[in-house]
Amino acid sequence: MYVSDCLSVNNSGHLTIGGVDTTELATEFGTPLYVMDEDKIRQNCREFVQSIKESCGGNGLALYASKAMCCRQMCRICAEEGMGLDVVSGGELYTALSVGFPAERIYFHGNNKSKDELIMAVENGVGRIVVDNYSELEMLEEVAASSNKKAAVMLRIKPGVEAHTHEFIKTGQIDSKFGFALETGEAMEAVREVQKNGSLELVGVHCHIGSQIFDTDPFTHAAEIMLGFMADIKRETGAELSELNLGGGFGIKYNENDMPPAFSEYMDRVSKTIDESCIRLGLKTPFILIEPGRSIVGAAGITLYTVGAVKKIPGIRTYVSVDGGMFDNPRYILYQSKYEFVCANRASEPRGDTVTVAGKCCESGDLLGEGVKLQHVKPDDILAVLSTGAYNFSMASGYNRNKRPPVVMVSGGKAKLVVRGDSYDDIIKNDI
Amino acid sequence: MYVSDCLSVNNSGHLTIGGVDTTELATEFGTPLYVMDEDKIRQNCREFVQSIKESCGGNGLALYASKAMCCRQMCRICAEEGMGLDVVSGGELYTALSVGFPAERIYFHGNNKSKDELIMAVENGVGRIVVDNYSELEMLEEVAASSNKKAAVMLRIKPGVEAHTHEFIKTGQIDSKFGFALETGEAMEAVREVQKNGSLELVGVHCHIGSQIFDTDPFTHAAEIMLGFMADIKRETGAELSELNLGGGFGIKYNENDMPPAFSEYMDRVSKTIDESCIRLGLKTPFILIEPGRSIVGAAGITLYTVGAVKKIPGIRTYVSVDGGMFDNPRYILYQSKYEFVCANRASEPRGDTVTVAGKCCESGDLLGEGVKLQHVKPDDILAVLSTGAYNFSMASGYNRNKRPPVVMVSGGKAKLVVRGDSYDDIIKNDI
Repeated sequence: MYVSDCLSVNNSGHLTIGGVDTTELATEFGTPLYVMDEDKIRQNCREFVQSIKESCGGNGLALYASKAMCCRQMCRICAEEGMGLDVVSGGELYTALSVGFPAERIYFHGNNKSKDELIMAVENGVGRIVVDNYSELEMLEEVAASSNKKAAVMLRIKPGVEAHTHEFIKTGQIDSKFGFALETGEAMEAVREVQKNGSLELVGVHCHIGSQIFDTDPFTHAAEIMLGFMADIKRETGAELSELNLGGGFGIKYNENDMPPAFSEYMDRVSKTIDESCIRLGLKTPFILIEPGRSIVGAAGITLYTVGAVKKIPGIRTYVSVDGGMFDNPRYILYQSKYEFVCANRASEPRGDTVTVAGKCCESGDLLGEGVKLQHVKPDDILAVLSTGAYNFSMASGYNRNKRPPVVMVSGGKAKLVVRGDSYDDIIKNDI
Repeated sequence: MYVSDCLSVNNSGHLTIGGVDTTELATEFGTPLYVMDEDKIRQNCREFVQSIKESCGGNGLALYASKAMCCRQMCRICAEEGMGLDVVSGGELYTALSVGFPAERIYFHGNNKSKDELIMAVENGVGRIVVDNYSELEMLEEVAASSNKKAAVMLRIKPGVEAHTHEFIKTGQIDSKFGFALETGEAMEAVREVQKNGSLELVGVHCHIGSQIFDTDPFTHAAEIMLGFMADIKRETGAELSELNLGGGFGIKYNENDMPPAFSEYMDRVSKTIDESCIRLGLKTPFILIEPGRSIVGAAGITLYTVGAVKKIPGIRTYVSVDGGMFDNPRYILYQSKYEFVCANRASEPRGDTVTVAGKCCESGDLLGEGVKLQHVKPDDILAVLSTGAYNFSMASGYNRNKRPPVVMVSGGKAKLVVRGDSYDDIIKNDI
């Protein structure tokens, strides 16, 4: 019915999420409002955990890529569901540690970690530091040595695989700010550098080939390349690395035509490739890590807005303005990302209008969608934008000094606040 | 020497802003750091105030468009310099009121003001509410009536003038989310609607034709159209409106080739056009409002970063990573905006390298510039990005849970903190 199966329509003709009437949520918590189905998030976590159990015999771990949507409650959920965590900043690490997330299950990523961040990671016993470059390697050697701790390290490798997604969100090819290049010998040199150092322990390699990928071929191809590199390492240095982190990038359904494969299908194909390659290369099957972010939370979240001005420009288009915009969802102005829209209080009516949904920011480009199919809406209607669980809250700004919206999670038919929205005092609290 | 004349190089070969050594600022306040030259900002304010005095005989007011960079200190500066304020949200209004900004000099803009925002504006006696559309007009009538206050109103008009700037930032044409259309009769209908209402007083009309405009012709053209409309209003309704707000959009120098005209030249030409048109149309010369934002703060600000990883990809390009990125300056990923870059501690060396400057966010598109001419930099160097005073701080997000940087202003050779940077506790403070 909708892009996400946690959404439905109740007897009042209202959109529901996790069985909860979205118009009631809008009344209770106000708009704009991020709403996430916690049960759906947990179900997604379990599918990843389960697929690793089935395909890899449990010899692996799914790490939630918290950049997709990081808050204390998301960290609690991942801890409870037995997942690990991929963090990319001191702020994400701080969030995880603040709820007692087991540090040994945290993987620290990023192309430009600061010394302070590395100290924070080492001091707190973060599971793996995924080293991106030589400057970082030097800094980490220093940090680990002076803290008298041995840091477990993976190296981020550019496997040279390029997944065909939006230009902005492809990675893995050699022209990338991330990682060590394979083909130039840089990656092997980094391996030797880590091996030389007594404060560091090289446990594995990592790659990430892109975002919102629907095809499993790029993943199996990347796995083959990475295993080939692990075999090279074994041959050239004698060391057999125990972990392979294949990153994330699993596509989700934003629109009707998006057909992402099931997680189990992905894991099944990838693990088969890994097993076959390992036999061929004479390697023990490594511990496998995957990093789903968007696919855990994306389709489990929606954003609710109140419709304000409806501006019909004869012969041109109709602008439907809402009380949010690029400050709570910058993905349309950034990437022209397409979403599905529903009028929450008219969900059983046909979506017969074609409109442009505009935000309230003082900027012409502040739109949430163009050519949007929507019910015939009026001021004060509630508008839902679907599949906004990933990269909306996490990218939110205070542009125009608008208040960042709260986040509510629904579970077992009940709603609870998990992130408070900004107050006006929050907006000026750092101003002197 | 640089795009902004508040920048120079001292005897140590370090970049200075307002005479202050930027490398010392980086040491004292950390990086990333927004630095603004308060003396330059005040000088810009005075040029606008002065040009209105000279060109319009003081019959006008320059409003600072606070969306460009809004904080309590900016509001204080504008109050002290005798400017008015253009606000576009409850948050901007709250900021202004929190430092006692004279409410009567505040103009409230926006395409989708909420009822709460209108109540806040009316209750606090905001000078003018610039009404954008019919829904807002109805709401405002209701709000004004129930508060027993008379609200002074301007109408936002689409003059049909389109300034040739970046697609995202052109406005004023009929296909816009902003304002009432002239050609469809919608604008005149709105005039009559306001005139009918006892709680509202129509004092003038407003237009805004775009952003980062270097040519004065679109402005004079818009002024002629708006005065023509004011003459129509006089003829059709008998009312002679007393105010004309011509908005902002004055271009600034981001790069060497940008040649914005002096403010005085703009005001001189526009006021001549206004005087001539008024004589021709039989109108009294209205009180003129202009709304500079970017041109007050843009070139008065820079951002300082510390260089981290420098990644040379042979035959492809060199990535210079810094400790900020799209979370403190999203304008490159949003609009591919081009900036000038200087290595602050090597400012007297030639900018002989061509590099890509990358941010620290876990996203391939997180770049601050490509094909950037820069000194030969090393890790721990300080990198300055110039002309970042507008739409950087104001658009900053906490993406990847990075800390939003502090803002420092320099004046009389001294630096003071005006906005504190985020702490880790700030990042999780709204998380439950």
